[in-house]
Amino acid sequence: MSDTWGLKLADPLFEKLTVIGCGLIGSSLLRVARRNNLARQLVAADVSPAVCVRVRELGLADHATSDLAVAVAGADLVILCVPVGANESVGRTIGPALAPGTIVSDVGSVKGAVVAALSPHMPAGVHLIPAHPVAGTEHSGPDAGFATLFLNRWCILTPPVDADESAVKKLSDFWTAAGSNVETMTSEHHDLVLAITSHVPHLIAYNIVGTAADLEVVTQSEVIKFSAGGFRDFTRIAASDPTMWRDVFLNNKDAVLEILGRFTEDLSALQRMIRWGDGDGLFTLFTRTRNIRRSIIESGQETAAPDFGRHQSDPQ
Amino acid sequence: MSDTWGLKLADPLFEKLTVIGCGLIGSSLLRVARRNNLARQLVAADVSPAVCVRVRELGLADHATSDLAVAVAGADLVILCVPVGANESVGRTIGPALAPGTIVSDVGSVKGAVVAALSPHMPAGVHLIPAHPVAGTEHSGPDAGFATLFLNRWCILTPPVDADESAVKKLSDFWTAAGSNVETMTSEHHDLVLAITSHVPHLIAYNIVGTAADLEVVTQSEVIKFSAGGFRDFTRIAASDPTMWRDVFLNNKDAVLEILGRFTEDLSALQRMIRWGDGDGLFTLFTRTRNIRRSIIESGQETAAPDFGRHQSDPQ
Repeated sequence: MSDTWGLKLADPLFEKLTVIGCGLIGSSLLRVARRNNLARQLVAADVSPAVCVRVRELGLADHATSDLAVAVAGADLVILCVPVGANESVGRTIGPALAPGTIVSDVGSVKGAVVAALSPHMPAGVHLIPAHPVAGTEHSGPDAGFATLFLNRWCILTPPVDADESAVKKLSDFWTAAGSNVETMTSEHHDLVLAITSHVPHLIAYNIVGTAADLEVVTQSEVIKFSAGGFRDFTRIAASDPTMWRDVFLNNKDAVLEILGRFTEDLSALQRMIRWGDGDGLFTLFTRTRNIRRSIIESGQETAAPDFGRHQSDPQ
Repeated sequence: MSDTWGLKLADPLFEKLTVIGCGLIGSSLLRVARRNNLARQLVAADVSPAVCVRVRELGLADHATSDLAVAVAGADLVILCVPVGANESVGRTIGPALAPGTIVSDVGSVKGAVVAALSPHMPAGVHLIPAHPVAGTEHSGPDAGFATLFLNRWCILTPPVDADESAVKKLSDFWTAAGSNVETMTSEHHDLVLAITSHVPHLIAYNIVGTAADLEVVTQSEVIKFSAGGFRDFTRIAASDPTMWRDVFLNNKDAVLEILGRFTEDLSALQRMIRWGDGDGLFTLFTRTRNIRRSIIESGQETAAPDFGRHQSDPQ
């Protein structure tokens, strides 16, 4: 892992960056853009006046406004950092105010639906290049962001087949300078990859936490007390922003249902192994899954500290 | 959370503690027993001569041996720290060597099956008091242990109804001095509580990691690269010791199948909400689960650091 913070640029890549939506991701983007000199001028836009006030207090941008059309005027890069389901309405609002040559991008966890929502509102000459930084925490809002959120994380670009190459290159340079590794794929493939690496994991985490809450035979206080046995790992991602995740599932339905079908099928097989006492079958699976974690740690996408470093290890 | 390490005792609680099985839990127990002066003499026993060699190198005990019967002779506390499925054979081996008045305990994640496996081998006058410290990491072996593993974690005792009260009290004092909070319940209730807080979470973590490994449409390298989207949280517990977990599922079959049935039923309902676009239903569940995490953090069973503290938060 690099310990630098991406590239601190001598000359900014963009003249004016407008970030729409100043939650965890948007506010992190503003922070790293300022820190690494990614754009000469930073404009923050959020439909919530309270969020705009907080963005001003935190000094995250040169201007903060709830008027999205005003915010994008003259911008050469606009990044939508809103829940997936809000893109359509934002696109409709800002479309007429976008100048030709502007790059419009987003950070949504779903790409196919975002393209479908935004494309109709993009005027000729505007470059729509969807993106998805695979990074986040369970916290939300402008205070939750931090400049290193994207450092050493992957950012996936899903440019349309006829995308302007120099625009793709410029957006790719932007994410690289923010500290990310950039990968390009189609939006269809993205949505499948994220269904298994993110969406279905979130769904089953939400589900097990819900199941636990509903049990009559075990009290909520017992679930909380004894959560260190494994359950608490699930609660972190089951504490993620409800609006964002509702929109993800509604907008990546096909891929999520496809992967969920696989998951359920595999779970039934495991259930059967338990019922019939197939210890060898269980052991074989449990050994295989151990190797995958090793690969994730080796690739720098995870810490090797035991128990996520929750405990301080004692050398004696 | 307390920042002390349990109680450092002026006078040890026991004359001779024998720990059988020197993996993560057993070696942590030896470390905290030495550190907090919980027993005058520490004996480590492990059927693996290689583990005994390593225990000697690490200086974890006064003696280390592969002869379990020799190890327990004269001990007033014997704690079995072996995979659940190994208790029966260990019980048979050590039974004849146990002196009346000895307390025999264990650390297994399943209690009903352990009682059934050990009871027949306990001579008259020996106090079998099963226990389960709800603590652990994904790492295994004598090098993985550390003295603070049990600090501020819960240890559940499941004494039989006719248990000797002073023996229960002494074992409870032992775990308190090791830094744990102690709770008492029946073995049947323990097995249900742990099925939801530990066993089924591990099972679905193993399962999703297996499902991901088997996909043809998404490569293993993509799963690893983009695991920061949520998947990697599951890989930690899916990297836990395969032997231990095989035994847990084989020995807590009824409770695991019961809770798994609930989980699957709830998941089907969620799947249906996605298929039919029930955004309100999803939002309601996702909001409810957020509160449970808050309670776990407030109870001191989890860190509030975003993303398990994997990222350094940036104040600006």
